[in-house]
Amino acid sequence: MDGDLIQNRIISLLINGLEKEGVLRQNNQPEDIIGNLDLSISNEPIESADIVTLIDKIIQNSVNTNDALFMNQMYGKMNQTSIYADILTTFLNTSMYTYEVAPLLTLIEKECIFNLTQHIWGESKGDGVFTPGGSISNMKGLMLARNSRIKNVKVTGLNNASNYRVFISNQAHYSFLKGAVFMGFGSESIVKIKTNNRGQLLTENLLEAIETEKQKGNIPLMLVGVAGTTFSGVFDDLNALSQIALDNDMWYHVDAVYGGSLMFSEREKHKFIGIENADSVSWNLHKIMGIPLICSAFLTKEQGLLNEAFSVDADYLFHDDDKLDLGQKSLQCGRRVDALKLWLAWKHDGNAGFAERIDGLMKSTNLFSEEIKLRNNFELLCDPESPIITFRVLNNSFNEDENNALNKAVRNQIFKEGEILFNFSEYKGRIYLRCVISDPNLGLDQIYDIINRIEAAASEQTLNKAYQKEAENVQ
Amino acid sequence: MDGDLIQNRIISLLINGLEKEGVLRQNNQPEDIIGNLDLSISNEPIESADIVTLIDKIIQNSVNTNDALFMNQMYGKMNQTSIYADILTTFLNTSMYTYEVAPLLTLIEKECIFNLTQHIWGESKGDGVFTPGGSISNMKGLMLARNSRIKNVKVTGLNNASNYRVFISNQAHYSFLKGAVFMGFGSESIVKIKTNNRGQLLTENLLEAIETEKQKGNIPLMLVGVAGTTFSGVFDDLNALSQIALDNDMWYHVDAVYGGSLMFSEREKHKFIGIENADSVSWNLHKIMGIPLICSAFLTKEQGLLNEAFSVDADYLFHDDDKLDLGQKSLQCGRRVDALKLWLAWKHDGNAGFAERIDGLMKSTNLFSEEIKLRNNFELLCDPESPIITFRVLNNSFNEDENNALNKAVRNQIFKEGEILFNFSEYKGRIYLRCVISDPNLGLDQIYDIINRIEAAASEQTLNKAYQKEAENVQ
Repeated sequence: MDGDLIQNRIISLLINGLEKEGVLRQNNQPEDIIGNLDLSISNEPIESADIVTLIDKIIQNSVNTNDALFMNQMYGKMNQTSIYADILTTFLNTSMYTYEVAPLLTLIEKECIFNLTQHIWGESKGDGVFTPGGSISNMKGLMLARNSRIKNVKVTGLNNASNYRVFISNQAHYSFLKGAVFMGFGSESIVKIKTNNRGQLLTENLLEAIETEKQKGNIPLMLVGVAGTTFSGVFDDLNALSQIALDNDMWYHVDAVYGGSLMFSEREKHKFIGIENADSVSWNLHKIMGIPLICSAFLTKEQGLLNEAFSVDADYLFHDDDKLDLGQKSLQCGRRVDALKLWLAWKHDGNAGFAERIDGLMKSTNLFSEEIKLRNNFELLCDPESPIITFRVLNNSFNEDENNALNKAVRNQIFKEGEILFNFSEYKGRIYLRCVISDPNLGLDQIYDIINRIEAAASEQTLNKAYQKEAENVQ
Repeated sequence: MDGDLIQNRIISLLINGLEKEGVLRQNNQPEDIIGNLDLSISNEPIESADIVTLIDKIIQNSVNTNDALFMNQMYGKMNQTSIYADILTTFLNTSMYTYEVAPLLTLIEKECIFNLTQHIWGESKGDGVFTPGGSISNMKGLMLARNSRIKNVKVTGLNNASNYRVFISNQAHYSFLKGAVFMGFGSESIVKIKTNNRGQLLTENLLEAIETEKQKGNIPLMLVGVAGTTFSGVFDDLNALSQIALDNDMWYHVDAVYGGSLMFSEREKHKFIGIENADSVSWNLHKIMGIPLICSAFLTKEQGLLNEAFSVDADYLFHDDDKLDLGQKSLQCGRRVDALKLWLAWKHDGNAGFAERIDGLMKSTNLFSEEIKLRNNFELLCDPESPIITFRVLNNSFNEDENNALNKAVRNQIFKEGEILFNFSEYKGRIYLRCVISDPNLGLDQIYDIINRIEAAASEQTLNKAYQKEAENVQ
């Protein structure tokens, strides 16, 4: 049958994966892609064979994020069981709002939330819900902060938004700013605190900023601690921050969107001291754990706050006995099932398997950073605290601007070669390269290869630059 | 290999679907499910064979939303190509924030947005982005309304939220209330306007309410027109509302989350007269079109507003040349690819295939409603305007309360039988049954069968009720 052609193509995808060898990415600009593929919708149907051709082209023109050398973002190498569970999720095609249409899936989400909260608050029972990502999880934190501190705000709204202040480090994720704007607090409500050389919030500066704001008549509303910054993967002093939040009657939210999964490993758990004092925590499982996007949990210490914040009357959906309906904890109405892919992977691997992934990632990360330290023409920002290595190539005869240009040029060259993908970012005026390890089996050979290629690109770019300078001098 | 067991199970899912015959749902309470399946996570890994057993149990304990007799919610029977595209999405596992990691997928999302906006605004180019659902799409409408009408709100926030008013019908979706609360306007900002017997907003009442609010010194901010209400699937007078919005300098948002897809059919397009004046539109493709959850578009008439509203500086993600980065239009950071499953289905079926689905759904819907009209003991709320039939069983010797109890009892009985699933809701003090047609091939035999079963259940329940009454009299 005609339709079976597509089915067969998808079965081969299941068995063989994307089948992209070596090249992570075809460095295609829009004009290249459009020249090779008709994006437009025609009036009449097209044949299944043409759909199969399209599937091949889609794969060709996409990034293989499942490759160990994809180190550009905080997600990557997927958990295999989780892929299967995500396919099952598609077939079950239901929404997480009522128990009625998602009976077992509701219990599975609750079981996942229970297990995650245990890692944070231990025996005391927390609460939570899956959200469409870390940004919205962080916004939910701000929502609960607001509801807990501003009387009657659900009814009358914000009538003096410009008085409230949310304290975050300048390395905290941009979703706090986005959320403050979306939720009507305005960007002025965000107070960004300086960080040390690694990217950790400076508590003395925080204390000063709180005092300054109080003197201006502003009200400290929420303090954010970051467990794994986006740039360098470092941890704020979660314990010290929890005390400061308490002293100043602020809601304490921990953004563990990236680093949270390190809690699965006994070796890494010490980095989270103080998280047990958090009022709310964001934790994405689609990052370090390799669950397919999106799998993000928002967790609270106290039960019932989410229901208080989000529940509404909607007779066409929620009926009398709605205690089991997760829709009353959620910003969305219809919601994809994001818990099943976590739960089935977790069932399969057990706690031990989850810990093993973390330990594997940290082992590879440390091997990588140790190798960077050994090389003269590299500079490591700091010892990694999560699976991110932040470093730069360094030519001592260059000034700061030249070294920045060199690092950008190196990243650009390797990006164009298309076999390794990592990112770059600026910190305190310097451009750093940033490799996120997502494959727990990334071996020493691969690590040497990555670093050697960066070194080679740096030499090549330095040479180019030297020629460029000569050229400039001649002119 | 051990791991292949799970793979084989998933391949059989691909080939045979859920393989649930007849029964849509096992009416399992939590205690039944837990007795039959261990939800807890163990410390050590478990075997793949056990995962296969779990997959079977998950299917057993889930609703088969892909069955024609699943009429409980506004989603259902899936487009087959779209299922395959969703599996491909899982394998591509990337995020829609930057062109860099989603080159072709970014172009595909833009192509979908372009095609959707064409249906609304014709040749003039609109803008848009996919969101995690209709609720968040509606909230984005409120965000843009706010930004367009309240000076400097992105910076200083809401300092007189209690003055703003959002006008919606009392049949509009609860997400407007949820959004107003989340975004700091407060529930008091929502003014609910009465509806006629079908569920359509009464414009005379709207005009009155606007005057009243103005006299109180409040500011009309946004007017919502609904294209397909959740309860009865009816359309507000989108054209009349667009004029009222214009006259009162309000942002005009059309919630076409459910009904939007009717625009694909030339026969249905007339219902949307006036939508071309909307400033923003929400439109879910995972409902009527059978794209797997979630596939929701938020669309704007004017280009650039989304970027103005949502863009932020985040050097670790967005670099200099970010014109192609969809992340700057979005509330989220990481975002699942929701466009591919729409695009591949649309490519395959063409505009003609999409129109055919709509015409099939409306044909079945009209056959259903005509049959309801023919039967004495049924009352149709109104002629359907989208694929929802809202009706009740009616016993003329019963009073209102008794008829309400009867309809609830009928729904309850059929729910428990587990072969047909439809919902119920209260409107103007009466309980109605509500069947949403999602399978464009639902035939007359099936329709007769559904209605006959409802009729039989009504007889049975009436009898029970009579016995009950007798019993009461005896006591």
